[in-house]
Amino acid sequence: MDLGMELEQSAALDAETKIAEAPGDHKAELRLWLRLLATNTLIETEIRRRLRERFDVALPWFDLMAQLERKPHGMTLSELSQRMMVTNGNVTGLVDRLLAEEIISRRQHKSDRRSYIVSLTEKGRRQFARMAKEHEDWIADMFGGLSHSEFSALTKLLGKLKASVRSAVADV
Amino acid sequence: MDLGMELEQSAALDAETKIAEAPGDHKAELRLWLRLLATNTLIETEIRRRLRERFDVALPWFDLMAQLERKPHGMTLSELSQRMMVTNGNVTGLVDRLLAEEIISRRQHKSDRRSYIVSLTEKGRRQFARMAKEHEDWIADMFGGLSHSEFSALTKLLGKLKASVRSAVADV
Repeated sequence: MDLGMELEQSAALDAETKIAEAPGDHKAELRLWLRLLATNTLIETEIRRRLRERFDVALPWFDLMAQLERKPHGMTLSELSQRMMVTNGNVTGLVDRLLAEEIISRRQHKSDRRSYIVSLTEKGRRQFARMAKEHEDWIADMFGGLSHSEFSALTKLLGKLKASVRSAVADV
Repeated sequence: MDLGMELEQSAALDAETKIAEAPGDHKAELRLWLRLLATNTLIETEIRRRLRERFDVALPWFDLMAQLERKPHGMTLSELSQRMMVTNGNVTGLVDRLLAEEIISRRQHKSDRRSYIVSLTEKGRRQFARMAKEHEDWIADMFGGLSHSEFSALTKLLGKLKASVRSAVADV
């Protein structure tokens, strides 16, 4: 199949494969970072592709809905921008499109009259529930090759790595 | 320090922290994916910041040089685009800027007269060597909180995860 070949090709050129071509003087840490980056990119690319194919939405659209779903009382645009996971792109433009589609609604902020609060509509909530269910299944499927103990070990080690990165960042 | 506070704040709002606020019905796999994503974003953000601060270059600039450094005979623009790790953005525009700065040079492709081959100049090679050295140190520093055995275990587990993701992607 064409798609299979295309995916194999892009997998063959991922970050880690590229580093393997380099002269052997790279540190193990660099190799691990590129492995992390490559894995992250594989997952994110696949999620983007499936969201587009199944629901005809972009990842930031899904991300924005996911953030709002956690806050039934809604949030301001600046809070929303801060919470978006996948991009720092044009949140205002995205909000306008979701308003037009009646996926979200807005109301004026009580104390700050210049800003307003957006939240999911009932239609938005239903649409998100459908997407979130499938999204969870995709992720579970992609992680399915790990045994239970590998899964817990990886969760723990990534927690350690995250703490290590944070502490290096804070030390600067 | 302002920077420290800012970093702490952005760390406090990373992907994983956000999911912790959600009702408890998310799968462990989703949580692990968000941990991976958050860790990746922390590292990438910090690398972008340091490249900018220390060398006044953007991450795609560094990435492009890294790809060329591995191919002393140079490559075509389309090969270069495929190999870039961090973005699928405007490679042509980036190449034009690096040509203007004499970081790279170009020559006509021997068999395909419509395309050309770019490679690092001597100046580019020297500049990249300085950046690559520091970049390796930053990564080593960020991963420094892991013991030797944690480091090997994480390398192995991420390899397994990558294989698991690839197989899920190929199965579609």
